[in-house]
Amino acid sequence: MNNNIVVSSRIRLARNFKGSKFSAKIDQDEAYKIVDDIKAVIEENETTSKLGFELTYLQDISEIEQNILVEQHIISPQLIKNKNQAAYMINKDKNIIIMINEEDHLRIQVLNSGLGLEDGLKTANMIDDVLEESLDYAYDKTLGYITSCPTNLGTGLRASTMLHLPALSITNQLEKILLSISEIGVAVRGVYGEGTKSMGNLYQISNQGTLGASEETLVERIKQISLQLVKKENTVRRVLLKYSKIFLENEVYRAYGILKNARMIDTYEAMKLLSVVKLGVETEMLENINNVDELMTKIQDNNISMLLEEEPEQKSKEIKRAEILREEL
Amino acid sequence: MNNNIVVSSRIRLARNFKGSKFSAKIDQDEAYKIVDDIKAVIEENETTSKLGFELTYLQDISEIEQNILVEQHIISPQLIKNKNQAAYMINKDKNIIIMINEEDHLRIQVLNSGLGLEDGLKTANMIDDVLEESLDYAYDKTLGYITSCPTNLGTGLRASTMLHLPALSITNQLEKILLSISEIGVAVRGVYGEGTKSMGNLYQISNQGTLGASEETLVERIKQISLQLVKKENTVRRVLLKYSKIFLENEVYRAYGILKNARMIDTYEAMKLLSVVKLGVETEMLENINNVDELMTKIQDNNISMLLEEEPEQKSKEIKRAEILREEL
Repeated sequence: MNNNIVVSSRIRLARNFKGSKFSAKIDQDEAYKIVDDIKAVIEENETTSKLGFELTYLQDISEIEQNILVEQHIISPQLIKNKNQAAYMINKDKNIIIMINEEDHLRIQVLNSGLGLEDGLKTANMIDDVLEESLDYAYDKTLGYITSCPTNLGTGLRASTMLHLPALSITNQLEKILLSISEIGVAVRGVYGEGTKSMGNLYQISNQGTLGASEETLVERIKQISLQLVKKENTVRRVLLKYSKIFLENEVYRAYGILKNARMIDTYEAMKLLSVVKLGVETEMLENINNVDELMTKIQDNNISMLLEEEPEQKSKEIKRAEILREEL
Repeated sequence: MNNNIVVSSRIRLARNFKGSKFSAKIDQDEAYKIVDDIKAVIEENETTSKLGFELTYLQDISEIEQNILVEQHIISPQLIKNKNQAAYMINKDKNIIIMINEEDHLRIQVLNSGLGLEDGLKTANMIDDVLEESLDYAYDKTLGYITSCPTNLGTGLRASTMLHLPALSITNQLEKILLSISEIGVAVRGVYGEGTKSMGNLYQISNQGTLGASEETLVERIKQISLQLVKKENTVRRVLLKYSKIFLENEVYRAYGILKNARMIDTYEAMKLLSVVKLGVETEMLENINNVDELMTKIQDNNISMLLEEEPEQKSKEIKRAEILREEL
């Protein structure tokens, strides 16, 4: 059941270029010069040119479209804050994203579904090598890669996994476990929503610092912690199925019953219930449902706004969201 | 929609016999002598003998059966407390109940569905007249009928209606209204459950005192207050349907969705949700459901116990209740 619990893995490398101020301090001309340089290298290199990258300037897309990209985990909220300088490139398979002029000049991100940190690191390093061949990174022999925020100094690497932990959550064990993880220097964040608030029992586990450890060590640590959480989640699922199947069924079918019948629902509640339905599908209680992950993205606020008129009221978004859930479940 | 909001009406007359101590003070022989006397009169009189009364001694039925009779509003919890002295007679139509050796020697109760207090009073007075012809009531010229509890002194009459007020409840207007009613000397009680706790948005409205007002005046007062509450409930229903239909639909379908899917449910939650489903049926949102009132009785705790083994756990009762609701809705 590992692939279901580790929803996705992400590798991110932060880089800056020698001779330019950090993104926050430069004007649009300088910023777009950096965009041009990166674009040229990616499109001219034999390997990367085959990946079908497309460039988008944030200025050229609407606010809702920008927000949807955040909901889909393609770009970061920070990139939107720099929208007059920022751009991103995404490959045809939509798993490699190059954010330009986010907090750093360059952020290479690789997403994989399931637990795929090592593969992600290989791909990110490949892109990194291609760019480093032609462009001059800001690099210090002692400190490593220079980054805008000191927490990213060193390898500039953040490795993270998105975990779906509903059984730990409904049995009230999650908070304690996540607290103990954050005490050993691993960050735990909610995946949707602001700050650390979690939605749909989805949690992002990532390394806090990047200094003083090799890329491989950082990746291995996040991998091992993720596997431990997977093990705990699986144990609770097995225990529930064996000793309290009716308790689990009750949670699962109630969640399904509400989602199939509600006429209005907000994102937070919908995510919470979809999470329990996902658990029901994975424990084979619910059949013929295979679009829960997709629905979790589809019912996010900005995606709903996109389906309605320009500035929909909260109420009409809740109605539309409920409609989609009734139809698609 | 009046008949749906006033679920039922009840008239109760309290009487005691001259020359006997109150029920709490007498032994079984004396108590059963009173039972015999009443039974004889009811069975010998031309009018009452046709009504097919059957006598049951509380001693002869199980505790669960006693409790089910309470859940069905046929007998009072007080009658069970006196189970070694107590008996009741019920007619074939099951709307006239004569409780013997409850708090008072005699309690004549007439139940009608909908608003039927006047009819109930007529029937109760008929039974009362038949008994008074042959038996000597304890009666004082100044005080009226002597009763065990001073609040029943006078006419010995309690007139009550059971009202279903879901729209006032979900719009949070009920508490204020019920408080203002209790301030004018009218009692508001929950219908199921102990004390004044209400279940399923069902409330019992009844007169507090019986002294110094004629039977007709007491009945008229309860009738008028009930009609006022019906009017308020109907107004809120109309407003909701006109201006917030989607809000109402959301409440109704969610309640239905949970009841159709839950695998465990307690009485309190089931009643709350059935109440909202009943509102959905009455506002024509839900079709082909016509057994909500019946289900409200069926899912009560003792009725569920009866369907299971002798001493079922709380958990198995919640499972059975959920099963019944899934099947019957």
